[in-house]
Amino acid sequence: MRIYFDDFIYGSIDGAVTTFAIVAGVVGASLSPSIILILGFANLFADGFSMAAANYQASKARNEFVQMKRRQEEWEIDNLEEQEIDEIREIYREKGFKDELLEDVVRIITSRRKVWIDTMMKEELGLIEDEKKPIDSSVSTFVGFNLIGVIPLVPFMVFMMLGFESNSNAFIYSTVSVLAAFFLVGMIKGKIVKSSMIRAGIITLIIGGVAAMVAYIVGYGLNFLVS
Amino acid sequence: MRIYFDDFIYGSIDGAVTTFAIVAGVVGASLSPSIILILGFANLFADGFSMAAANYQASKARNEFVQMKRRQEEWEIDNLEEQEIDEIREIYREKGFKDELLEDVVRIITSRRKVWIDTMMKEELGLIEDEKKPIDSSVSTFVGFNLIGVIPLVPFMVFMMLGFESNSNAFIYSTVSVLAAFFLVGMIKGKIVKSSMIRAGIITLIIGGVAAMVAYIVGYGLNFLVS
Repeated sequence: MRIYFDDFIYGSIDGAVTTFAIVAGVVGASLSPSIILILGFANLFADGFSMAAANYQASKARNEFVQMKRRQEEWEIDNLEEQEIDEIREIYREKGFKDELLEDVVRIITSRRKVWIDTMMKEELGLIEDEKKPIDSSVSTFVGFNLIGVIPLVPFMVFMMLGFESNSNAFIYSTVSVLAAFFLVGMIKGKIVKSSMIRAGIITLIIGGVAAMVAYIVGYGLNFLVS
Repeated sequence: MRIYFDDFIYGSIDGAVTTFAIVAGVVGASLSPSIILILGFANLFADGFSMAAANYQASKARNEFVQMKRRQEEWEIDNLEEQEIDEIREIYREKGFKDELLEDVVRIITSRRKVWIDTMMKEELGLIEDEKKPIDSSVSTFVGFNLIGVIPLVPFMVFMMLGFESNSNAFIYSTVSVLAAFFLVGMIKGKIVKSSMIRAGIITLIIGGVAAMVAYIVGYGLNFLVS
């Protein structure tokens, strides 16, 4: 089991935004903190699980696509041998090989089926058999979704435990905490890709913040429209 | 602008499940069709936008990670030249080259910086500079999310337009239509990866169906817990 940073980032930003979207939509509809928590937790578990399932299917589709392309290349090597040899020649010509050395390279590469197909996959199609397991991608998304996505709900939990009926302050805290969550995710990203953590934090804060604002405006606007 | 099938599939399954999750959660909380539509559409637009934003950040992170690895390889070639030449030798030895021919290949590959680095990236690290643009990934997800995610809402729209107050039948239609949506997405996947469309439809129906059921149970269960 491995946690992939890209799937984690995907899940975490979406988890924070959509939980906040539920909060925003429900505050717009003037519901109680308990309803907010019902919908918020339903979203965290269910949407996290849903994203994990969707990611699993998408990752599997990508792997199956690569396998399908590999089968195509195998078929071409079996049925269009000369053409495929020419393609290897062209690939190595572009790397700077020529004359007799080029022919030697083509001969060696095409003498082993696996090497030949791997070369076509990488060099012609730009495809590498991904070592990422769909189940690991899927779990990474789920972990990111829940770990970061719970943050906008924390104020409502605290307020409900304290017995407060109003949720206006909780909403402000929720807004602040979701923005802090984006900044945190951005900093994690910055650390992994070895760029400025502060800069990455600010960019993710802006992108996540726009998504959260869209969520709020849509939720609030539709409330006026329908009620 | 290109629609990527994997990002489309990711968005479409999550769009269908989470819209259905909202429907399920809200039916559990006994709210009116208008509230269901408020939350459903808020979810479609906002969560679709959110997933697009999250995908954008995750795709950018992946690209930046590959660029960071490339800079590392460049540094290694500049500072650890002998070691990197040995690595190229090892890579081509495994392809079946040896003796003088191996040395010729190593000389040609390492004589052009770009070829050398590309080879290290593909063969040593298994990384290919992805031609996928983050913005296209992001739009693909948004399109899939909205196109497929609207399906579980259609019955509620029809029922509201017809002036029905009860939503129990709409919920049944919504359940049937979300399952049909999963089957459709699976068939699209099957067509793209050239496997059995029926089989792919059924598998996606099962995976999406489990996610939708989790959404329903969580939404319904929490409703009892908190109210």
